[in-house]
Amino acid sequence: MSRPETGASHSAYGAAGVDLQAIETLKERIGAFAAMTHGSEVVKGVGAFAGLYRLRNYKNPVLAASTDGVGTKLKVAALLGHYESLGIDLVNLNVNDVVTCGAEPLLFLDYISMGKLDPQIVEPLLRGMVWACREVGCALVGGETAQMPGLYGDGDFDLAGTVIGAVEEGAIIDGTTVREGDALLGLPSSGLHTNGFSLVRKVFNVDENPAVLYQSHQELGHTLGEELITPHRCYYQSLAPHYSKLKAVVHVSGGGLPNNIPRLLPRDLAAHIRLDAWEPQPIFGMIQRAGGIDDREMRQVFNMGIGMVLICGSDAWPSLQGSLPDAIVMGEVVKRRDDAQVIMQPLPG
Amino acid sequence: MSRPETGASHSAYGAAGVDLQAIETLKERIGAFAAMTHGSEVVKGVGAFAGLYRLRNYKNPVLAASTDGVGTKLKVAALLGHYESLGIDLVNLNVNDVVTCGAEPLLFLDYISMGKLDPQIVEPLLRGMVWACREVGCALVGGETAQMPGLYGDGDFDLAGTVIGAVEEGAIIDGTTVREGDALLGLPSSGLHTNGFSLVRKVFNVDENPAVLYQSHQELGHTLGEELITPHRCYYQSLAPHYSKLKAVVHVSGGGLPNNIPRLLPRDLAAHIRLDAWEPQPIFGMIQRAGGIDDREMRQVFNMGIGMVLICGSDAWPSLQGSLPDAIVMGEVVKRRDDAQVIMQPLPG
Repeated sequence: MSRPETGASHSAYGAAGVDLQAIETLKERIGAFAAMTHGSEVVKGVGAFAGLYRLRNYKNPVLAASTDGVGTKLKVAALLGHYESLGIDLVNLNVNDVVTCGAEPLLFLDYISMGKLDPQIVEPLLRGMVWACREVGCALVGGETAQMPGLYGDGDFDLAGTVIGAVEEGAIIDGTTVREGDALLGLPSSGLHTNGFSLVRKVFNVDENPAVLYQSHQELGHTLGEELITPHRCYYQSLAPHYSKLKAVVHVSGGGLPNNIPRLLPRDLAAHIRLDAWEPQPIFGMIQRAGGIDDREMRQVFNMGIGMVLICGSDAWPSLQGSLPDAIVMGEVVKRRDDAQVIMQPLPG
Repeated sequence: MSRPETGASHSAYGAAGVDLQAIETLKERIGAFAAMTHGSEVVKGVGAFAGLYRLRNYKNPVLAASTDGVGTKLKVAALLGHYESLGIDLVNLNVNDVVTCGAEPLLFLDYISMGKLDPQIVEPLLRGMVWACREVGCALVGGETAQMPGLYGDGDFDLAGTVIGAVEEGAIIDGTTVREGDALLGLPSSGLHTNGFSLVRKVFNVDENPAVLYQSHQELGHTLGEELITPHRCYYQSLAPHYSKLKAVVHVSGGGLPNNIPRLLPRDLAAHIRLDAWEPQPIFGMIQRAGGIDDREMRQVFNMGIGMVLICGSDAWPSLQGSLPDAIVMGEVVKRRDDAQVIMQPLPG
């Protein structure tokens, strides 16, 4: 990474749109933010060529790695000037990906890219990332804030994050032990999380008419904007104490339930989901009505109220129930009969 | 990460600018590319929620992590339609950052973001990444290809990469053992590497007049375009066998020699560099003349021909010389006298 220290002002480079002085000032603030996430494991943090992190207490460590961005949720957050929540999203969605393996998130690195460095955007983004990193004990050890004149319009930016976690080789959760009769549990999402935002922007005509974001809706209990930028829920703290009881953990991201569950389900099994086991939040109905979208597409683009699906033995459920009070029994694992690996239907009768 | 499998065509989402079918097809190709970098350490690769990698043969492992992008070199590469070299850049510049700690690069993850998914861009980018990963034994275990309609113009994209490496805690190279009298060695760059491109684009008016990229220059021996997109040299293979002899390794990225060397030099020491120890490549003179840039700024923006600075004991140099045939003795470590930690001057007399 390169957040280098710089000397005096740079006329030619400055004229080309790259402000090294602004980078220097920002770099100091980033270092101070990042230090708030550092324990004794961190040998070197932000500002070094590479972040260095002691991997302790693992016998046969397997590293779990995820890189992802927030999609065009960033366009909505930018219209509202609400960047902290986007920083939280960036950490949480990657943490949830390493959680699917039963891993502990350890390191986080960010990439922020914009036309001209804007501390009014970068600082709240980083505050959100730091806040979310601290929640899960993840160290922000590096990143890059890139000035890319000519690539981004005013106020536009892009954002990517990487989480590295670790898990004992013998404790990897990977779905291979899933059997017929296992329980399918759902943990509620906090709303849209970070998927389907290009469709949402189009359906509500957000880009052309940002004022819609400030309209209050009785069924939401707040404005559309508040609903849309609700941070992606992080499931690590809820799930980590129960890793040993879980056979599969599915992060319901782009592709929804029908496309994410098969990523971890053995080929001869299918997930039988009872759609009346839970009620999707009102925002999903609003999107569907506004866009005239059919049920099938809704389920393939959005999480429909379930952010994480857990599969465990039916005997494990009673002991989990007390610790995961908002978990929903959404169905069970059945023998696969045809192409479909995810069967969604209302309860018969 | 989320490169989910998808089902049938998606009309509303497609109309909003996100082509899930195209993602699916591309995802398969990405998986095949990525598998070319996988050894038995890789438990799960691209397509899983998180990449899983067995960390073997370390007693007290310290993870070394770097995230960085290629800057606006991507604008030049895009004008030339030369994406492979950019993929190579992305891997190499991050590998070089973890090399500064004496680490072995293990994992790579990429982030590619564009308005509408363009396989003609994504595939050669990934080919370049895979090629560079294979060169250093690094596994491409994940990433994200994001479609961001409304954020990028046609053909525009952004790019970030993350390398995770590991080093034994006792073998970290960090500059703390550097002493007065130590030798400063330089390893030649392959040209601009990935720094200063916003200035270069402005100086040669590249955005407005891309034809300049196709002009041949006798002093370069080829076209300006060929010169500019030469891949960032990777130093891992040259340096790994000699890690134990090196006291500090400095990646000369943004900020040049004067701002990168102090990142690893103890505060009471300074680097005395003899500017006539090497000759910067002709491209640097061309940029300086075309932009009317003073020497000081040139050295703070560009690597000026030196991609990596090594510091070793003066007694270690003879044994290194044979294995690093292109290393240049560029100066030595001296006591610090004033503010300046990097003193650059011609040899007296």
